[in-house]
Amino acid sequence: MNINFSIEKVSNTLDGKIKNKIDSLTKPPGSLGKLEELALQVARVQDTLEPKLSNPTIVVFAGDHGAAKEGISPFPQEVTYQMVLNFLNNGAGINVFCTQNEIDIKVVDAGVNFDFKDTQKLINKKISFGTKNYLQEPAMTKEECLQAINNGSKIVNEIANLGCNVIGFGEMGIGNTSSASLIMSKLLNIPINECVGKGAGHNDEGIKKKNELLSRAIKLHSDVESPLEILQCFGGFEIAMILGGMLKAAENKMLILVDGFIATSAFLIANALYANINDYAIFCHNSNEQAHKKMLEYLNANPLLDLRLRLGEGTGAAIAYPIIEAAVNMINKMATFQSAKISGKND
Amino acid sequence: MNINFSIEKVSNTLDGKIKNKIDSLTKPPGSLGKLEELALQVARVQDTLEPKLSNPTIVVFAGDHGAAKEGISPFPQEVTYQMVLNFLNNGAGINVFCTQNEIDIKVVDAGVNFDFKDTQKLINKKISFGTKNYLQEPAMTKEECLQAINNGSKIVNEIANLGCNVIGFGEMGIGNTSSASLIMSKLLNIPINECVGKGAGHNDEGIKKKNELLSRAIKLHSDVESPLEILQCFGGFEIAMILGGMLKAAENKMLILVDGFIATSAFLIANALYANINDYAIFCHNSNEQAHKKMLEYLNANPLLDLRLRLGEGTGAAIAYPIIEAAVNMINKMATFQSAKISGKND
Repeated sequence: MNINFSIEKVSNTLDGKIKNKIDSLTKPPGSLGKLEELALQVARVQDTLEPKLSNPTIVVFAGDHGAAKEGISPFPQEVTYQMVLNFLNNGAGINVFCTQNEIDIKVVDAGVNFDFKDTQKLINKKISFGTKNYLQEPAMTKEECLQAINNGSKIVNEIANLGCNVIGFGEMGIGNTSSASLIMSKLLNIPINECVGKGAGHNDEGIKKKNELLSRAIKLHSDVESPLEILQCFGGFEIAMILGGMLKAAENKMLILVDGFIATSAFLIANALYANINDYAIFCHNSNEQAHKKMLEYLNANPLLDLRLRLGEGTGAAIAYPIIEAAVNMINKMATFQSAKISGKND
Repeated sequence: MNINFSIEKVSNTLDGKIKNKIDSLTKPPGSLGKLEELALQVARVQDTLEPKLSNPTIVVFAGDHGAAKEGISPFPQEVTYQMVLNFLNNGAGINVFCTQNEIDIKVVDAGVNFDFKDTQKLINKKISFGTKNYLQEPAMTKEECLQAINNGSKIVNEIANLGCNVIGFGEMGIGNTSSASLIMSKLLNIPINECVGKGAGHNDEGIKKKNELLSRAIKLHSDVESPLEILQCFGGFEIAMILGGMLKAAENKMLILVDGFIATSAFLIANALYANINDYAIFCHNSNEQAHKKMLEYLNANPLLDLRLRLGEGTGAAIAYPIIEAAVNMINKMATFQSAKISGKND
């Protein structure tokens, strides 16, 4: 199984000038902490001293999971399509936070177990009516997996063509924390029980059952090794499309807003295939899904927020976005010591 | 020395209904973590199921410190007035972040060592041209201290009358991390060396000198005990005005955005005098000024952001504000399980 993206390492030729500009602003050097690091990153990605955020967009990919019927989630599978309708009706968390922060939102049917008919606002990229059950067979065929990656890539390319240079990835899919846990366990070689959390709200008994089921899945597919095979085996369609979207975003030199546990599982695969993608990633929050912390540590990521969010949908990215705006406004709009005639340090 | 505010404990009579409303929204219960707690707090303070944020405002109080000439700060005192002019010209960090997040900004001369002439945009509440040097005598007289508290209170009352119900407090004053450290040390009974940090950017030698000077100040005023005497002794005018402003804000049932190290030192005094004020406080960030963490622990505060900011001016409050907006939008604008026809949990 092969995919082909061209992701360049970000140039550091302007680093000195960018840092000088940040240090010339009317504040003690370093006193805006993480904002200064963000401003440097954004300026680097755009290779300019005057970075801009254009047409910020969050794409929410929805997909169903064959394994859901085994009881890996406390919610019934129908919630996936019901939430998609909620997205289209502007009623979900991601809608509210995107509206507040003036982020464009796009909703994609990556493979929901529901016939949406022709809903204008929904982007129809359905691979099939849900993945297959990885407790019996691989969640996707190779062809389905490649198609999903390709679909995500195409969607992001179209969004890039509309002038977007900062993009977040959200997801909806009953059962998809399980896919993320399985991907994490296989890719990072961490025992599955350390990768499992309460998802959408399991009680202790539910977590125990989830652990048992996912241990079985790991055993059943013990021969699976490469990042793309792991994805193909454990799904889901939404994660594969996010992977394709992230890779295309980096190819297009867009900033990638990485959301929570599931979006980060897609990023783990992207990172395993194209390490340069890290340069483009902004880790938006530390999810309350317990294993997310370990993913972030593995990636050496220092996320912007830690608000105990665990909703998914891209909500962490949407809520964090104003901080990225603040970093960009800082570097572009603050006066300098010289322009404002401020005295420097004594020493 | 006496002040008189009437600060009511926030009512919890609507708690059950507020929590039910939050749990009815289309998300797994608890999955928006800190946002759900914020929404509960805001709804409690406003005693309503439909809270609103009106005319958000940040007031920046500037004052000079007699002790500054001893070398407690790495920056010369003139930076205080230069930065005030920068605020008035919209060039500082706080201007940029307030503009971005549509927060009104007001700048107050609490006691800067400069004659600003009549600058329309500056609120002139100057007590004098800087406090006295606490290495020789108390920073303020009792009358000055009470006048400063009263000035802060009046300013906030006027802002409340303009329809503001959420207010942040910023500060500017070369040397004012030293006042905050001294207040913290005396109020919380923590050795001064554990309360001192690098302020606007001391090197190791500078911190050592700062520690020596502040130890001398602590010894010189070892008899000072009550919260208001501590304030009077160590200053500054800007901290006293923030105290008065915070107390009046709570009396008016406004939400109080608590910024970093210096603003929190004012809040410590407010808390010592009127414990009910805690109900109105939103702690916006964990400052990179190292002793702030201990202040927050003492207050049992769980701040919204941890971005290693240490600029002051109210910038942490301005940057955190969209998170509070997100909490309020969540409770008002998200669809419910019932309205969106979403199925509930299986168990």
